[in-house]
Amino acid sequence: MDKSRTRIIVVGCGRVGSLAATLLSGRGHDVVVVDRHESAFRNLGPEFSGFRIAGDASEPSVLKAAEADRAHTLFAATDQDTLNLFVVQLAREEFHVGNVVARVFLPEWEGTYREMGIGTVSPVRLAVETFLGAAGIAEGRSR
Amino acid sequence: MDKSRTRIIVVGCGRVGSLAATLLSGRGHDVVVVDRHESAFRNLGPEFSGFRIAGDASEPSVLKAAEADRAHTLFAATDQDTLNLFVVQLAREEFHVGNVVARVFLPEWEGTYREMGIGTVSPVRLAVETFLGAAGIAEGRSR
Repeated sequence: MDKSRTRIIVVGCGRVGSLAATLLSGRGHDVVVVDRHESAFRNLGPEFSGFRIAGDASEPSVLKAAEADRAHTLFAATDQDTLNLFVVQLAREEFHVGNVVARVFLPEWEGTYREMGIGTVSPVRLAVETFLGAAGIAEGRSR
Repeated sequence: MDKSRTRIIVVGCGRVGSLAATLLSGRGHDVVVVDRHESAFRNLGPEFSGFRIAGDASEPSVLKAAEADRAHTLFAATDQDTLNLFVVQLAREEFHVGNVVARVFLPEWEGTYREMGIGTVSPVRLAVETFLGAAGIAEGRSR
C-alpha cells in the first residue's frame, strides 16, 4: 500500500480541521473532510483536492460514506469535546480505524483519553505552554 | 529582583488567557488579567490570586492601571489578531515591556510578527502539528 495515499478523515472543518485537511491533501494524502455545515468548507485552502461530506459524523452512515473502514486515521477536530469523543470511538469500534485523535478543549480530560488509547490535541494547553516558553517563564512545567 | 514575582499581564481571559493567568498565578507570579468583559473572569481557576481589570487593553489608561511600566511580560491572548497586535505594540512602545507575545489566529501572520520581535502563539498551527505527529504523518513539516 502506498502510505502517502492512505485515507485520512478530518471531522470538523473549522480553523483546526480545515488547516489539517488542507495540509494533508496538499501533501498528497487521500483526505475526506466532514462537517455538518457545508459553508465550513470555505475554510479549506485552494490546495485541498479531497472529498467534502456535509453531514453529522456521529451518524454511522456518514462515516460509512466517508469509507471510514479503509481509513488510516480519523481526526475529530470539532469544537465540541463530547462529539469528538463519540466520533473517535465510533470510528475505532465500528470502522476499525487504527489511529484516532480528538481535539480536546478541557485539558483535564486529556489523561482519560490517553488511557482509552485516543490521541489528543489540546490547542489551549499547547498555546499556554508555548507562551510560557516564549516568555522565558517555563520553569516548573505543569504536565 | 525576585524573578518569581515579576509582573505578568495577560490580556483576554478566554480559554487560553485564563489558563495562562491561572497557571502563572499558581506558580507565584504577580499576574494581572485584563478583559473587556468582567464575566470572563469566571474562567480563572481557584488558584488565581492576581488582579483583574475589566477594560479595553488598547486604551493606554488600562495598561497604566495594570502597571504595565513595571511588567516583565505581556501576553495578548484575545481572539482578535488585530487587537492582539495593537496591544503588544502599545505595551512595548509606551510601557517598555520587554517580553511581548501575541496569540495569532492566521498562521501566515506569524513570520511578520517575528520580524517585528513579537513572540507568537498560534493555537491552530500548534494543534495541527501535534495532530500530524500523533497520527504518525509528520513527514515534510510545513514550517
